[in-house]
Amino acid sequence: MTYKHKIQYYETDKQGVTHHSNYIRIMEETRIFFMEEIGCGYERMEEVGIVSPVMNVNCDYKRPTTFPDIVEVELSVLELSKLKTRFGYKMTVGDKVVCTASSLHCFLDLNGRPVALEDRFPEFYKILVEMQQNAK
Amino acid sequence: MTYKHKIQYYETDKQGVTHHSNYIRIMEETRIFFMEEIGCGYERMEEVGIVSPVMNVNCDYKRPTTFPDIVEVELSVLELSKLKTRFGYKMTVGDKVVCTASSLHCFLDLNGRPVALEDRFPEFYKILVEMQQNAK
Amino acid sequence: MTYKHKIQYYETDKQGVTHHSNYIRIMEETRIFFMEEIGCGYERMEEVGIVSPVMNVNCDYKRPTTFPDIVEVELSVLELSKLKTRFGYKMTVGDKVVCTASSLHCFLDLNGRPVALEDRFPEFYKILVEMQQNAK
Amino acid sequence: MTYKHKIQYYETDKQGVTHHSNYIRIMEETRIFFMEEIGCGYERMEEVGIVSPVMNVNCDYKRPTTFPDIVEVELSVLELSKLKTRFGYKMTVGDKVVCTASSLHCFLDLNGRPVALEDRFPEFYKILVEMQQNAK
Repeated sequence: MTYKHKIQYYETDKQGVTHHSNYIRIMEETRIFFMEEIGCGYERMEEVGIVSPVMNVNCDYKRPTTFPDIVEVELSVLELSKLKTRFGYKMTVGDKVVCTASSLHCFLDLNGRPVALEDRFPEFYKILVEMQQNAK
Repeated sequence: MTYKHKIQYYETDKQGVTHHSNYIRIMEETRIFFMEEIGCGYERMEEVGIVSPVMNVNCDYKRPTTFPDIVEVELSVLELSKLKTRFGYKMTVGDKVVCTASSLHCFLDLNGRPVALEDRFPEFYKILVEMQQNAK
Repeated sequence: MTYKHKIQYYETDKQGVTHHSNYIRIMEETRIFFMEEIGCGYERMEEVGIVSPVMNVNCDYKRPTTFPDIVEVELSVLELSKLKTRFGYKMTVGDKVVCTASSLHCFLDLNGRPVALEDRFPEFYKILVEMQQNAK
Repeated sequence: MTYKHKIQYYETDKQGVTHHSNYIRIMEETRIFFMEEIGCGYERMEEVGIVSPVMNVNCDYKRPTTFPDIVEVELSVLELSKLKTRFGYKMTVGDKVVCTASSLHCFLDLNGRPVALEDRFPEFYKILVEMQQNAK
């Protein structure tokens, strides 16, 4: 599953390259795209009553990108436990890796209490398990 | 009342100048600063139960700015009626005008119904009246 | 020619709606999309040696949008002279108009001197003329 | 040395909190503030002919913040070698830690070649050495 983000003019800075903060936003776009593709998009999350705040981001900048590059992002599942998951991101422009990153998420109900994803949202958990196995 | 905004590196674009969308954000910062200075800040607005969405923005870009410029913004009241007000913004760097702009706002209660500012928030209305007279 | 922008989570604010500054960015995305569609994209502009800075933006907010809305933008040419053009933007979500806007641009060579678009970039000028006639 | 960043309305998202991408920008603001405070600001960097791109960011989100919080950031030097340095950031609102983060930077000349900071910019290097010792 590959997400494509086109670098916009307003995402560049006076160095002539994409400002490094924007990769964090591309990561979020990628998660949202992925969730929608697997049928677990925003509306489904709301029905289930789960939010998954970001607990950590880690981002290695390998090569600069700039407008009007198309960044392709491959999402993977690096870690998965009852209460948390870590997604991995590999971003490329053409055949060059430009950025690798990860983000850690917990799962909370609408009162802010941790929930076990496997119980609360099994269809999503199952897909994450498969993705984690593929990543190995 | 003058608000100072320091242009940040991430606000520039690959042309080497402040991206034009950021002036709209500087306008919001200026309004917030002004409201706080006159004792009608966010918490007071919440107590009163008023929101003032932006209905229109108009922005004339006169000269480019860039990191690490300090933009000074003078706020004025261009129009004032029972239900709406238009703020004016004059932005300068040193003695050069870099941008002039305006924004139109209505006043709504928390159910989204228009409210007469004079009745609902007289202390704020009075200051706007004075500012409009000064602007003439 | 319709451009589609998907509202991202990071474009919303604590009011629960798309922050008004982001529409200015959607306008830029739309221009870039349009220029590429007609074969006058960034690389062609660079070959020709033209930049077209934004001199003014004007934006009427009609209805709020939010994540994950898809905003469709129709671009038109409102004004066209030797040295300037004004684009119009009609943004809709489904059958509702959410925002109408315009932006004024001049054309400069790489030394910052005004250029007559008709002479310097006739293929682009011709398309703008046609679009302006269609808009009437 | 403490940098203060006021959370702006446009930095919040529909969850009602500061969007997590903005902390990366606050980190940049803090570095710029620090460099200026010690007399090694942007102009001095340009004279010396050094740029220091971000190679990695790592950010732990501890508690949400929102408009109009004031985030106080303490900068520290976590690692220092001839060619790289890692800054640490401790962000607090009142007496609560809201975010801890770090960023890794190399030093390049204007042709993109690595430079030894100690040789090229000794006044800055000396301060980093002192800060690293204080951090222990």
